[in-house]
Amino acid sequence: MFDLIPYLEKKQKLVNDSLRQIINHTISHERLVSAVNYSLMAGGKRLRPILCLAACEAVSGTYDQAISAACALEMIHTYSLIHDDLPAMDDDKLRRGKQTCHIKYDDATAILAGDALLTYAFQILSSNKPKTYEQAANWITVINNVSTAAGIGGMVEGQIRDVTSEGTQLTLDQLEKIHLLKTGALIKSAITSGAILGYGTSIMIEQLEIYAENIGLAFQITDDILNVEGDPRVLGKETGTDQNRGKNTYPALLGISKSRELIKGKINNALQALDNFDNKSDPLRAIAQYIIVRKK
Amino acid sequence: MFDLIPYLEKKQKLVNDSLRQIINHTISHERLVSAVNYSLMAGGKRLRPILCLAACEAVSGTYDQAISAACALEMIHTYSLIHDDLPAMDDDKLRRGKQTCHIKYDDATAILAGDALLTYAFQILSSNKPKTYEQAANWITVINNVSTAAGIGGMVEGQIRDVTSEGTQLTLDQLEKIHLLKTGALIKSAITSGAILGYGTSIMIEQLEIYAENIGLAFQITDDILNVEGDPRVLGKETGTDQNRGKNTYPALLGISKSRELIKGKINNALQALDNFDNKSDPLRAIAQYIIVRKK
Repeated sequence: MFDLIPYLEKKQKLVNDSLRQIINHTISHERLVSAVNYSLMAGGKRLRPILCLAACEAVSGTYDQAISAACALEMIHTYSLIHDDLPAMDDDKLRRGKQTCHIKYDDATAILAGDALLTYAFQILSSNKPKTYEQAANWITVINNVSTAAGIGGMVEGQIRDVTSEGTQLTLDQLEKIHLLKTGALIKSAITSGAILGYGTSIMIEQLEIYAENIGLAFQITDDILNVEGDPRVLGKETGTDQNRGKNTYPALLGISKSRELIKGKINNALQALDNFDNKSDPLRAIAQYIIVRKK
Repeated sequence: MFDLIPYLEKKQKLVNDSLRQIINHTISHERLVSAVNYSLMAGGKRLRPILCLAACEAVSGTYDQAISAACALEMIHTYSLIHDDLPAMDDDKLRRGKQTCHIKYDDATAILAGDALLTYAFQILSSNKPKTYEQAANWITVINNVSTAAGIGGMVEGQIRDVTSEGTQLTLDQLEKIHLLKTGALIKSAITSGAILGYGTSIMIEQLEIYAENIGLAFQITDDILNVEGDPRVLGKETGTDQNRGKNTYPALLGISKSRELIKGKINNALQALDNFDNKSDPLRAIAQYIIVRKK
């Protein structure tokens, strides 16, 4: 029986150490580095980087092939949180139990810290010196996948759809579309990046994409449920904020009980997609099952 | 005698056509695409993409080798203007004779349009399918150069230094440092990217870097002078804003006349760096000389 918690802790430490090393080697304006460090090291779950490393291992790669991509993905995720929290967007004051970046520093610094993190991700993704054509081509594919997922037809589109739909009633399909873009696309690119860098076959990558889409949605529905009935002290952020803001969520649209059923269906789909993988994909299986029971 | 104006017009048209094609093929949320299109097609000079193409040609490459990098550089430049204009930063209402993005749309849309453009640049830079190892390695080098120049130790650092130094007295060295970062780094990466993609030798690239640093500073000093004595109708933006805001500028530090002398020195350095180049670098020579006489 695979034991997930020590696996997650080990991988979190690996990612945190790598991110800390990057920041420690960064030469720039003190306030900017401080803000970047503050948000990046604020105690995130490191879901995206861990999925990236786990996908690399699932296709028989080793974690060191994907660690820089894993760090880049966490940087992009952190930039998106910093910008989403700004007064002009969600106007959130608390994140992971700490003041959001613009509260701790100021709006200008938060905008620039986000910009810096997004750009830094691509600096990291292009910092490897590939030795073969295949290696170089793989990195370019990863950069293309990640930028497409994070960009105008991915995460940023999801965010503008989210912001502009507040106070209007969405259908389930429209809500799913927002989440596939806003959180799903980057989660998917984390998994495909890991698989590409581990030299996975195209059939493996296709199956992992199905896994990714399903856990991405399951993760988001759980997030919505935690915003209704989670414990703010455990979550590290306020709850009930979605309802106050008139946000479209799964619980608001379907109720808690049907939302939970939907999560179960998605997780089953995700597990099925791994049917032809061996026990090196056990971490991915365990992560899928963990999503529904998580408390933060 | 090389005739610069038709050269600039031809290259501007090339860049505009390519950017328009990219936007026309973009599938995303209508408001986001509209904001991106608004700022990207607001009539910029296209200095960075033109320098990229001209550098490619100066090392005997052809423009099509560098056109996608040229477009990516203009996207990064445009994102930086959108974010710099935000109320939390420079709070500018007019840019190129038109409303700034956050005035035309709103702050949230402007933040996201900037984020989208920055990310799109890396999508474009990674969209080529390299056929050889050298080609693939060159693209990775270009992505690394551009992200380094735009990022936490480049343009973003320049911007936070600029924002945090308002109202304090800088030395000439400190001011030059800000401009080397804020505008110089991206201009330099435009030129080196073009030269790398045109398969320039490392000696050529070194000389072009000297050219780039010098015209970057000359360009910035001219900008400062135009903010004092330019014609707002020709410039398409308000003048006198630097002084009102207590900004550190070359005219404020040295006076107009010494600032002009400084420009001449920088341009001479830039031209000298091209001494061993043949007439394929005439556009770069002409651009250096044009900087001092430009009215917008």
